Amino acid sequence: MKLFVVGLGPGGIDQISKKAMKVLQESEIIIGYIVYVDLIRDALKGKTFYSTPMTQEIERCRAAIELASKGKKVSVVCSGDAGVYGMAGLIYELVQDYDNVEVEVVSGITAACSGAAVLGAPLTHDFAVISLSDLLTPWDLIETRLECASKADFVICLYNPSSRKRHDYLQKACDIVLKHRSPKTVCGYVQNIDRESESAVILTLQQLRDTNVNMYTTVYIGNSQTKEIQGKMVTPRGYSI
Amino acid sequence: MKLFVVGLGPGGIDQISKKAMKVLQESEIIIGYIVYVDLIRDALKGKTFYSTPMTQEIERCRAAIELASKGKKVSVVCSGDAGVYGMAGLIYELVQDYDNVEVEVVSGITAACSGAAVLGAPLTHDFAVISLSDLLTPWDLIETRLECASKADFVICLYNPSSRKRHDYLQKACDIVLKHRSPKTVCGYVQNIDRESESAVILTLQQLRDTNVNMYTTVYIGNSQTKEIQGKMVTPRGYSI
Repeated sequence: MKLFVVGLGPGGIDQISKKAMKVLQESEIIIGYIVYVDLIRDALKGKTFYSTPMTQEIERCRAAIELASKGKKVSVVCSGDAGVYGMAGLIYELVQDYDNVEVEVVSGITAACSGAAVLGAPLTHDFAVISLSDLLTPWDLIETRLECASKADFVICLYNPSSRKRHDYLQKACDIVLKHRSPKTVCGYVQNIDRESESAVILTLQQLRDTNVNMYTTVYIGNSQTKEIQGKMVTPRGYSI
Repeated sequence: MKLFVVGLGPGGIDQISKKAMKVLQESEIIIGYIVYVDLIRDALKGKTFYSTPMTQEIERCRAAIELASKGKKVSVVCSGDAGVYGMAGLIYELVQDYDNVEVEVVSGITAACSGAAVLGAPLTHDFAVISLSDLLTPWDLIETRLECASKADFVICLYNPSSRKRHDYLQKACDIVLKHRSPKTVCGYVQNIDRESESAVILTLQQLRDTNVNMYTTVYIGNSQTKEIQGKMVTPRGYSI
């Protein structure tokens, strides 16, 4: 049986691809973290939804695989893209124990891209995507990545920049970048992308360092060429104009 | 007047978001590189299409802004996401000379994500996106980025890995990564994502070094944890299973 891992995009139902929506419509059971399941519940009446709290990813994925192996049409849903800090990797790791389940990943628009569109065009040149969550990654490795990405003048896009237990992680990250980049570097962040409460802020790296953001925030640190143009964050591609 | 810069996703019409399709349907004129315009021509009968060859990005974007400033409803289309090596940045730079044109970027699924879904789940951990095209970026800077991304164990996603004039760039890039990573590192590439001729290959870093790919290829170099599971390229997120 095929098990689908589907990216829902940033939030609103109108940023889901036609392909992803078709897969969900053809599924009997849709499984995901409750916040994401709630985004699509109204658009997919009559389906069986199965949701678990945030920290139960392994149980959730195992349940999905079990159901698929018993012949059910199952989709696991993730916000953004299912392959960027999403469930696609874990599903592949767990599915090794089952010989009758084939996995298909259906892409969605990841927060790096949907947030960038709100801010302007921050990712028009090479960029690095780094999660500041140290639940599954040693903080040392996150620091090394911040250090190397800063040195090489990548635009940096930060996922999971904050949580209750990690309120000062964004500050720590900015301090590392500040060793290599001007405090005036153009930065931006977007909260609640594509929801009613969406908000976007453009600010300097120094200001970003002293800002508290919530966990539904995607942060962008510009490279040395990034500028603010008419209230938007823009990284030039390099055309001579 | 509003000017839209729209990401079409990887190729097939069913991976465009509903929002992007609505914007295109409401546009009078759709402008883009001919290969991308051809992807949507059939689905959008009755529109005026304006396409130029690949190297005429500035002319194309200026024409779009001119038309929007005269009151036309215009969309500039890009493959993938309009903000990732797309036209969004250039449009913002050029639009500064016009005071009656407001830009809105509509995201799409970028090749990093759509190609990843074909290969499995290579981007489930921190990753760097690097274009190997040195048309607009000095090769030295590209080398520095490859070097730093390799050192910090980022998964690396390469755009524009090859062209007629740059047939050995992928080899050069792999040689840099090989200084920091095992020749057995799991890598993959996808050609013609989401088209009929789509093909995906998983191979080692050493094998990738000695492979010729065409310009419609997206390349993935795994991190030290990336593995091959049942013919798919998977980077674990770090769950203890």
